[in-house]
Amino acid sequence: MRENIIGRANVEDTPELEAYYRELEQYETGALWTVANTIEPWAPQSSSVPVLWRYADLRDHVLRSVQLVTPEKAGRRVVYLNNPGRRDVSAAVGWLYSGLQVMNPGEVASAHAHSASALRFIMEGSGAYTIVDGHKMTLGANDFVLTPNGTWHEHGVEPDGTPCIWQDGLDIPLVNALEANFYAVHPNLQQEVTYPVNDTSKTWGHPGLTPVNTTWSKGYSPLFKYEWAPTYEALQDYGKATDGSPFDGVMMKYVNPITGGHVMQTIGASMQMLRPGEKTRAHRHTGSFIYQVAKGRGYSIIGGKRFDWRERDIFCVPSWMWHEHANASESEDACLFSFNDLPVMEALGLYREEAYGDNSGQQILAN
Amino acid sequence: MRENIIGRANVEDTPELEAYYRELEQYETGALWTVANTIEPWAPQSSSVPVLWRYADLRDHVLRSVQLVTPEKAGRRVVYLNNPGRRDVSAAVGWLYSGLQVMNPGEVASAHAHSASALRFIMEGSGAYTIVDGHKMTLGANDFVLTPNGTWHEHGVEPDGTPCIWQDGLDIPLVNALEANFYAVHPNLQQEVTYPVNDTSKTWGHPGLTPVNTTWSKGYSPLFKYEWAPTYEALQDYGKATDGSPFDGVMMKYVNPITGGHVMQTIGASMQMLRPGEKTRAHRHTGSFIYQVAKGRGYSIIGGKRFDWRERDIFCVPSWMWHEHANASESEDACLFSFNDLPVMEALGLYREEAYGDNSGQQILAN
Amino acid sequence: MRENIIGRANVEDTPELEAYYRELEQYETGALWTVANTIEPWAPQSSSVPVLWRYADLRDHVLRSVQLVTPEKAGRRVVYLNNPGRRDVSAAVGWLYSGLQVMNPGEVASAHAHSASALRFIMEGSGAYTIVDGHKMTLGANDFVLTPNGTWHEHGVEPDGTPCIWQDGLDIPLVNALEANFYAVHPNLQQEVTYPVNDTSKTWGHPGLTPVNTTWSKGYSPLFKYEWAPTYEALQDYGKATDGSPFDGVMMKYVNPITGGHVMQTIGASMQMLRPGEKTRAHRHTGSFIYQVAKGRGYSIIGGKRFDWRERDIFCVPSWMWHEHANASESEDACLFSFNDLPVMEALGLYREEAYGDNSGQQILAN
Amino acid sequence: MRENIIGRANVEDTPELEAYYRELEQYETGALWTVANTIEPWAPQSSSVPVLWRYADLRDHVLRSVQLVTPEKAGRRVVYLNNPGRRDVSAAVGWLYSGLQVMNPGEVASAHAHSASALRFIMEGSGAYTIVDGHKMTLGANDFVLTPNGTWHEHGVEPDGTPCIWQDGLDIPLVNALEANFYAVHPNLQQEVTYPVNDTSKTWGHPGLTPVNTTWSKGYSPLFKYEWAPTYEALQDYGKATDGSPFDGVMMKYVNPITGGHVMQTIGASMQMLRPGEKTRAHRHTGSFIYQVAKGRGYSIIGGKRFDWRERDIFCVPSWMWHEHANASESEDACLFSFNDLPVMEALGLYREEAYGDNSGQQILAN
Repeated sequence: MRENIIGRANVEDTPELEAYYRELEQYETGALWTVANTIEPWAPQSSSVPVLWRYADLRDHVLRSVQLVTPEKAGRRVVYLNNPGRRDVSAAVGWLYSGLQVMNPGEVASAHAHSASALRFIMEGSGAYTIVDGHKMTLGANDFVLTPNGTWHEHGVEPDGTPCIWQDGLDIPLVNALEANFYAVHPNLQQEVTYPVNDTSKTWGHPGLTPVNTTWSKGYSPLFKYEWAPTYEALQDYGKATDGSPFDGVMMKYVNPITGGHVMQTIGASMQMLRPGEKTRAHRHTGSFIYQVAKGRGYSIIGGKRFDWRERDIFCVPSWMWHEHANASESEDACLFSFNDLPVMEALGLYREEAYGDNSGQQILAN
Repeated sequence: MRENIIGRANVEDTPELEAYYRELEQYETGALWTVANTIEPWAPQSSSVPVLWRYADLRDHVLRSVQLVTPEKAGRRVVYLNNPGRRDVSAAVGWLYSGLQVMNPGEVASAHAHSASALRFIMEGSGAYTIVDGHKMTLGANDFVLTPNGTWHEHGVEPDGTPCIWQDGLDIPLVNALEANFYAVHPNLQQEVTYPVNDTSKTWGHPGLTPVNTTWSKGYSPLFKYEWAPTYEALQDYGKATDGSPFDGVMMKYVNPITGGHVMQTIGASMQMLRPGEKTRAHRHTGSFIYQVAKGRGYSIIGGKRFDWRERDIFCVPSWMWHEHANASESEDACLFSFNDLPVMEALGLYREEAYGDNSGQQILAN
Repeated sequence: MRENIIGRANVEDTPELEAYYRELEQYETGALWTVANTIEPWAPQSSSVPVLWRYADLRDHVLRSVQLVTPEKAGRRVVYLNNPGRRDVSAAVGWLYSGLQVMNPGEVASAHAHSASALRFIMEGSGAYTIVDGHKMTLGANDFVLTPNGTWHEHGVEPDGTPCIWQDGLDIPLVNALEANFYAVHPNLQQEVTYPVNDTSKTWGHPGLTPVNTTWSKGYSPLFKYEWAPTYEALQDYGKATDGSPFDGVMMKYVNPITGGHVMQTIGASMQMLRPGEKTRAHRHTGSFIYQVAKGRGYSIIGGKRFDWRERDIFCVPSWMWHEHANASESEDACLFSFNDLPVMEALGLYREEAYGDNSGQQILAN
Repeated sequence: MRENIIGRANVEDTPELEAYYRELEQYETGALWTVANTIEPWAPQSSSVPVLWRYADLRDHVLRSVQLVTPEKAGRRVVYLNNPGRRDVSAAVGWLYSGLQVMNPGEVASAHAHSASALRFIMEGSGAYTIVDGHKMTLGANDFVLTPNGTWHEHGVEPDGTPCIWQDGLDIPLVNALEANFYAVHPNLQQEVTYPVNDTSKTWGHPGLTPVNTTWSKGYSPLFKYEWAPTYEALQDYGKATDGSPFDGVMMKYVNPITGGHVMQTIGASMQMLRPGEKTRAHRHTGSFIYQVAKGRGYSIIGGKRFDWRERDIFCVPSWMWHEHANASESEDACLFSFNDLPVMEALGLYREEAYGDNSGQQILAN
């Protein structure tokens, strides 16, 4: 990959050089100029492609897994999202994993822990719950729950519930790539609930108030559950106090109430509201995003391609790819849940953002 | 002040020494051993005394000020609390100032700014509001509002309101003592409201959610108002998740949602709930506290003396003085608002706490 | 104190009001407008005055204390600096204490601890040492050593040393004012040296390098001693890389190598070099300063008054008072050591600074 | 990859399941249980292998590159280290790149900037220099210099110098993997030196002292150069104050003097001294390391395999691989420079460490 630009490698192969390269190989080395332009690109070229996963396509397949495999054999019944450019690492986009998990009433998964950080976003069903380090949380549609790095956690559905489907989000591919993933099964397979049900919400889930004399030094939020009702109310309230972002409408970040920062050290999450008829301008930034449509319908243009979405659909935006969103309704708002690796970008000093300047900020659709 | 203990000063006056001391005075100096035991006490001895200010005593006097002086002449109509031990600095306790301010419907105070940090806690009336740096907040009973260090702020009551009384809390004495107080009157006397009413609550007042891409680097909370209804709900919720503190019952701290820390750099504030029949154990700590009874009735034992209180009463606890609280009702909870200088103690590394060990943690009443 | 300005109190005494004031007093209250203008000044008015303490005046008196009192009786032989405006709190300026301590060879003070933070700056003599929490430090002229808040510490002079004099700097007045001072004498009167001599310098005293895997969570620097030779070298080096400050010449701050911040939570310290012939411009800021001339001679103009100084002289600058410095030599540099309460100003959000704009930044001398 | 353990996937392929898998593929999805055990390993399995690169093997090849390619064509003449397990990303270990660069007297590379963080460790030659954002630094053997993320930087050798060889260390593979790498050539190809030579050392390179009133909010150290002489002195000093680490001897971390933290956000660096005859115990941890022998000779046992090294040799330790070091001399100390991705491990909450417990902490050599 030669480039005829000063400061870039532009060396022609010669027999002498080829001999030299072969010698270098013997010592587990190479000549930088043979790879320099490849490993130092002018800008990021994501190996992921934008994908829209329609819930209408997936729901039956997810439910069918319940018939096909037992929880004992499968561990978990999950259909995971496989980005065509990232099949080698089982990622939905970049280094983020996502899957749709189903569980029947009365089922309980075994408790485990891993270095990867995880989250769930509930899609349908009643009676779902999650237990994290002894804290049990009851869950309903559009609730967002954390199962952070290193915690014992398990999921279940109450016997009087209905089949539940949710989206799992994890950074398994990242933590594997960083060669830092550990996995453990709980010695008792199930952990005990050692706190009042939903205690983290009771303790940390109030605006501008925290317990006196409570310390917390973990890298993740002590508030594990973010319910839909107060989240939607927050978006509506905030919408009255802001013009919103030209790129994202009315957007709020789920935060650790102790720090005001991301909920976990490697995965961030947000909920945004596109107001009736709202059509945003395009921008791009480093960091990969997975969206789930929590409410409404509309479309996004990603890398010049249009993706129409409706409630429960999932789509991804790869790093440094232009994207813009539109609410297709003139009367109802639309809400997009998303999770991302921005905490990684920010902690490592790698976040960069750019607005699309041409054409009033609207991408030209690729044919 | 001689002490016959090794490591303490114990020097008898002699004619020779007295002559020496007079010489030292000529050079603006002194001999340390003549003051050492005084300036290095074994433990803090507060110059403040515990005081209870009964609202029943004060209310008429506060209202009468409206007849006695005009706002133009008085600046503000305020009856301030004057601790017998701190009259020289006009403090209610330690370095904290407190006063009861009254304002009639249609009145508007002139906008000003000062280096002292300030807060208001609404006691009665409707139609009160505060404007801080262009943000207007509407206020009702038991609402808590900040007017931080350096901000332009002003208070008023809507023309269709009723006479309003609130408690002002400031660290004026501290900032004066630190020789760092500046005061300015707004050039236009009134500031404009440049944001939607109550926008800071709409923006920052949702649990676990903050606006994306908003930066805030001030030393105080971007959330300026903490309303009573969600605060009381928070106490009740948290009460279901905690056994509470043996010294303070169910106690929560008002926090900056960006940092999880104190609302301002020099004044902290809390609300605590004593459950029906609850009687706490005594402890003491550095830092001065001013309490206002937001709900219910009971008593506190402070420095061995009992103070019975009911709704709207105000009392103080000086630094390093034993104190314990009791709810006098067996059926209703009691709530105490308090503000303090803990942020100062903590920032300067001076916080220390001690439990009262004897007599099951109950002080013996002094006669 | 009435002021005829809108927003300020301007109420004339009347018999009716005087009766009202007497009633308020019965309830431990007062009318704010009677004190408002006093407690809310337009700008800080320090109660301290600038003072220069000449070492030539003090040295004999300091040495004489050795004859006058025994260490056992006096605790420590110290002549302390007594600002005419701060005699009530034994402060040299603002809330800072300073004294000149003398110790003879072979003498050892008893170990103690207090909530006040302390420092020493060595003036003359050989063989001095300080022990802080088991760390022993040997000391020479112009060395600066910390004995932080809460540490066990003691001073001594080796038997083969000479009489040693040093400046003590403490925030005793501040910690007393904040009603947070505790004092304790070491149970064994002397502590053991449990680390290699000068180990904190060996461990933390190297630029850009710290021990791997060492944790430190105290509020003060793990480096306790800052020697003169590397400090002077630093000033000379830095002087080659900077134009210096118009107000302070080449000035460096002693810092905690773990945080880059102040050495202690309540007291900061600096060393500054005035280059040959350098004459700085005046500025003022909140925060009180005590200077000691470490090298050279010159003068400072403080609050319009000139103070000529030479090596070992000590002077103070009160809060918010104009000050400027001049090196009286055209060939030698002059160095000023100083300590201050800037950590307090900064932690509490009270720091403010202003340049003197008139007359090319030079104050007009008051007659 | 089936595992017969509760909580792990253990599903046998059946025709029905295979049909199901094919259907899932059509929707860019898969069944988690087919990959779960692979993507959730019990512990990290590094894809890197330990390698020792002998300087004796490489030096001639590095020098030969000067004859083979011009700087204009090659950009830079560098022989890079190619881990057999990481050839696809041109990494020496994990996500770290390393290469040996050579430059002749009078040569100047063109200035560029990239999102990857970079460092140089000088191996031989005189007259080398680096310019970072206008700051020029002169360099000698064993000096360590930063060219952080986003800075304009360029290298050169003075006309009166000698051929210089140094090790480059970068996180290019990581930043590429995170799809966040940007590259730019300086518009003028060369930047101007706008500060005094070596000004960052003059300004920030003094222990316990920083410039007053200087602010720095970048994610990397303002001190760009860490010279060998004070580093070696630091190790010797620290060695007198510590027993050292059982795993690493006397080890110090290069730090940002403003924060006490790592020098850059993605790459950390250390220098360690193995005392005469010292033989450490084995441990393992997440994070990848590249070592260069700065002084002495000895060996390391990595993953059960012995690697003998001498001055200038380079070797790597992959993540979570046991390793221990030994100084082969009984009279001279040995010093190992290393750089690593610990800042990433720590910022993302992924650091984990384990001591080798068996056999007195010594690995059994694999045959």
